[in-house]
Amino acid sequence: MTPVVGRKATGLVAATFTPLTPEGEINLSEIRPYIDYLLEQQGVKSIFVNGTTGEGMSLTVEERKLLAVEWCHQGKNKLEQVIVHVGCMSLKDSQELARHAAEIGADGISVISPSFFKPATADALRMFLQEVAAAAPAMPFYYYHIPAVTGVNLRSRDVLEGIENQIPSFQGLKFSGSDLMDFGQCVSYSPSHWSLLYGIDEQLLGALAMGANGAVGSTYNYLGSSVNKLVSAFDKGDLPKARTIQFQVQDILCYAIKLGFDLAVNKQLMSEVSGLALGPPRLPLLPCPHPKALSIAQRLQQILGDQ
Amino acid sequence: MTPVVGRKATGLVAATFTPLTPEGEINLSEIRPYIDYLLEQQGVKSIFVNGTTGEGMSLTVEERKLLAVEWCHQGKNKLEQVIVHVGCMSLKDSQELARHAAEIGADGISVISPSFFKPATADALRMFLQEVAAAAPAMPFYYYHIPAVTGVNLRSRDVLEGIENQIPSFQGLKFSGSDLMDFGQCVSYSPSHWSLLYGIDEQLLGALAMGANGAVGSTYNYLGSSVNKLVSAFDKGDLPKARTIQFQVQDILCYAIKLGFDLAVNKQLMSEVSGLALGPPRLPLLPCPHPKALSIAQRLQQILGDQ
Amino acid sequence: MTPVVGRKATGLVAATFTPLTPEGEINLSEIRPYIDYLLEQQGVKSIFVNGTTGEGMSLTVEERKLLAVEWCHQGKNKLEQVIVHVGCMSLKDSQELARHAAEIGADGISVISPSFFKPATADALRMFLQEVAAAAPAMPFYYYHIPAVTGVNLRSRDVLEGIENQIPSFQGLKFSGSDLMDFGQCVSYSPSHWSLLYGIDEQLLGALAMGANGAVGSTYNYLGSSVNKLVSAFDKGDLPKARTIQFQVQDILCYAIKLGFDLAVNKQLMSEVSGLALGPPRLPLLPCPHPKALSIAQRLQQILGDQ
Amino acid sequence: MTPVVGRKATGLVAATFTPLTPEGEINLSEIRPYIDYLLEQQGVKSIFVNGTTGEGMSLTVEERKLLAVEWCHQGKNKLEQVIVHVGCMSLKDSQELARHAAEIGADGISVISPSFFKPATADALRMFLQEVAAAAPAMPFYYYHIPAVTGVNLRSRDVLEGIENQIPSFQGLKFSGSDLMDFGQCVSYSPSHWSLLYGIDEQLLGALAMGANGAVGSTYNYLGSSVNKLVSAFDKGDLPKARTIQFQVQDILCYAIKLGFDLAVNKQLMSEVSGLALGPPRLPLLPCPHPKALSIAQRLQQILGDQ
Repeated sequence: MTPVVGRKATGLVAATFTPLTPEGEINLSEIRPYIDYLLEQQGVKSIFVNGTTGEGMSLTVEERKLLAVEWCHQGKNKLEQVIVHVGCMSLKDSQELARHAAEIGADGISVISPSFFKPATADALRMFLQEVAAAAPAMPFYYYHIPAVTGVNLRSRDVLEGIENQIPSFQGLKFSGSDLMDFGQCVSYSPSHWSLLYGIDEQLLGALAMGANGAVGSTYNYLGSSVNKLVSAFDKGDLPKARTIQFQVQDILCYAIKLGFDLAVNKQLMSEVSGLALGPPRLPLLPCPHPKALSIAQRLQQILGDQ
Repeated sequence: MTPVVGRKATGLVAATFTPLTPEGEINLSEIRPYIDYLLEQQGVKSIFVNGTTGEGMSLTVEERKLLAVEWCHQGKNKLEQVIVHVGCMSLKDSQELARHAAEIGADGISVISPSFFKPATADALRMFLQEVAAAAPAMPFYYYHIPAVTGVNLRSRDVLEGIENQIPSFQGLKFSGSDLMDFGQCVSYSPSHWSLLYGIDEQLLGALAMGANGAVGSTYNYLGSSVNKLVSAFDKGDLPKARTIQFQVQDILCYAIKLGFDLAVNKQLMSEVSGLALGPPRLPLLPCPHPKALSIAQRLQQILGDQ
Repeated sequence: MTPVVGRKATGLVAATFTPLTPEGEINLSEIRPYIDYLLEQQGVKSIFVNGTTGEGMSLTVEERKLLAVEWCHQGKNKLEQVIVHVGCMSLKDSQELARHAAEIGADGISVISPSFFKPATADALRMFLQEVAAAAPAMPFYYYHIPAVTGVNLRSRDVLEGIENQIPSFQGLKFSGSDLMDFGQCVSYSPSHWSLLYGIDEQLLGALAMGANGAVGSTYNYLGSSVNKLVSAFDKGDLPKARTIQFQVQDILCYAIKLGFDLAVNKQLMSEVSGLALGPPRLPLLPCPHPKALSIAQRLQQILGDQ
Repeated sequence: MTPVVGRKATGLVAATFTPLTPEGEINLSEIRPYIDYLLEQQGVKSIFVNGTTGEGMSLTVEERKLLAVEWCHQGKNKLEQVIVHVGCMSLKDSQELARHAAEIGADGISVISPSFFKPATADALRMFLQEVAAAAPAMPFYYYHIPAVTGVNLRSRDVLEGIENQIPSFQGLKFSGSDLMDFGQCVSYSPSHWSLLYGIDEQLLGALAMGANGAVGSTYNYLGSSVNKLVSAFDKGDLPKARTIQFQVQDILCYAIKLGFDLAVNKQLMSEVSGLALGPPRLPLLPCPHPKALSIAQRLQQILGDQ
């Protein structure tokens, strides 16, 4: 077995939106400026592509390949990590994307549980993950846990049980759930070379206390600079400062939630804040009315201006 | 606009399982005997392929095409209706499958709501359906409502609102939900040329009373003969007989549920009852232990032997 | 064991609202005209008091006794059945109310599952019911199943298993769920002297087909006259007529649901339709704005005027 | 308005079990040794009585009064805080218990949302709380948020909005939810004299990071000594030590959960660990088999022996 040589994902990882043209086709030309924006304006050096934020499930296999190629190509020598989400409803599609990610030199792959047909047990899910990982055995592998979206309520800790025996390339977890007992048990079980990436941005501070060594989220696209300060304050033991920033992030999100916040709004918000032309979401999501995203962007500026 | 010329689906429609080899590859050679079994042993003359029962979401687009071709080819001049499910998480994949179904001469197409990203409103879902239908405008179109699986809890009646203006080929509903108010409102709203196919086999009798003019379900693969008698008794006004058969169906399913009943068990049960070699399910579903399916098959014979 | 001598509840049973003064105190004086209204205007001859519709859980034990006394007293020689709901979160309170119902000559008692602490199994629930029933062993006993409100998702059929051995006075079921397989299995299991009362008014027709021999619901307070015709048409085998009335009931409720329909609105609607002064609901329910109830009442008149 | 003079609850608060005799009657004689055990063996100086852990909803109003009297009487000059839970399904019962708590000299009262009838909005819930608080205006008042039990999913932050205008005696929150954004927003909104007590013991560390200044939970009955060390380590900035203890608590609970953990098991576990005779739970809960509680108690000793 070839040992896994990829670096470990830590710190902030932006779950990227997928740039589309106004007509809804993938827009590869926006990827280069997107990466520059993350590096220069947000201080974010790692990305997670074709995931939930990237509308991966609304893309065809072919589109996901084209996007992965471009993210990897443009990120080369600039980004620390490009993790490609390869989870699909169909195992075969996932395997094809895993092989492709390996060919194009991604730094890691990640897989969400299938959610139309749901695995009945942690064993069943681990077998699914194993089959995907086996298609790209040298790729650092991250399991992506997001029960509120998938409806798969298996404990992550149970999924991790003995997983290195089945997936030698296993390297960590993207945990997007609010159950910090499950998360804590994952931290407690993990060898030191695993990454424990937390995925609910609005309660990151709680997860850092519980032992997270990184975070993946959509808000780091536009709040990365602030949240880097949060992480830095936490690392220095300055809890009051970390808390202040966490509360600001929460204030922004609460404001957005009151207005109605979904992935379409989130994407439009990123366009407003960054100036990038990310385009509309795909059906069944409807485009966000511009005034709504603008209002949230203004609130964001107002709150972070207080910083 | 080309007028819709397909006949209307009525009566019992078997939602077919997808035959796989023991290695999990699609097994086209089992389709011909499968169709003969339905016609000869169960008196079932219409089928619904690549749907939930057929593990459509676990198949690749290419596999779904190969299967659709074979079902249509083998069913030609034998079956009354072959409805192909073309719903996918990705609109583009759905459109490709819709076009393909039209090319190969399917009798109709059906689409389930995307469920990873969920439509927020009935309007959003109707727009998604419209985009799929537009790729095959002459194909009779059936909306497939199954909220317990998709988690999409939009009322069907709201999805139907004005749908013929957006989908001129609209021809009916596969309603797999237990909310008979919503179903009744769909019946009440429907013009006479629509099919109102009910999809929860264990409470079909209630839906017939409410106005269903057909049924689609997985149990009609092996209970079609009995349920044809149920429908016939109902049509003649012999409610006690219809009820007796409905209770038998329920007894069989309750027995199965107590043992643990999922799609894998269901598929294996069909293999036991029919003698067809349908193979295992795909991950993330795990194969059903044979003794379990055998026990349910024996119970089925025992209960229906009482008939 | 004293044999149960109460007559069996069949036909329509109105789940009564609890009349309150504008200040929120129980208003016993409105009960007599309420009963007269049901008999004279709606043709409803049986009532179910202090249940969900009656805000039983928002009343003190003492208030529930006072109300039960008045309903029984005023209904004597007029009503066919007065069933008193005696379920509480506390077993002791339920037992006290059961004893009291027996003392005042109620025709039956009914108990909902406790829902703050939920029984883990059907056995645990049956033990709870048994302890209540044992406090009033001669009272015909009805189990009240309403999973959407209690969150107790145990199958009714499992609760019924062997229940006569534990509750000799057991006489039936108020089934307020949409799962007609569970309901059908209850019908199939029941001896002929049990009442199988269905409780989701908007899909009664489906339950009648499945074997319901009566119905309990809040809408029979103001739709009893119409639904009596539905039941009568069904009994005569005139399904089209039964369906037409069922669809009218659904139309009314759908209209109400679009406006926002809860118990407070329902209560105010009854005040509007009947002219009775039922007063506001109790906190945590908020009073219904009058125009909303008025609008629903007008829609009701409009739809039933079409009849 | 009489100013609130009660001290503020901070640190660990044990949510006490209600001692019952083997026959299920309240057992007041066990309260004195219970308090001594908490003080001497667990270093826990505050208690929360008649709450979820205390099976408050399974007790009659009269029983709750007798218990509150005894807890206050025996705790006098020994405990720092006795907070009495007075929430009921019926507002009137809650008001009666609130008045009683004031008469007997409790240190505070707390109210859970009614859950049979659920408040539709935060305003409705706040009005309910206000009516209870007004019956005992000098009693420090704590809102008790526990959505997984009540099914009331209103954000706590919305319930707190302007609450001091309606409840001048408002003094804090028992937050038993895993949504740390909502909790963080409550912390951020709170004046410094409020207590922010966290109630999910297995993820306390995350809540401390977010700003909790105390904790209420059932496990502090038998894990108080350990969790006091966790809190102390956290206060000193020794996160690794705090995390180690948190993981031990999680290990114990995970072990229990795998065996099947509910309030009955929890109560029996406390009997095993403390030697107190707390008796069985009340129906609809079933008694815990002794071997199960014993096994968890042994695991607990084993894990904490490692400390």
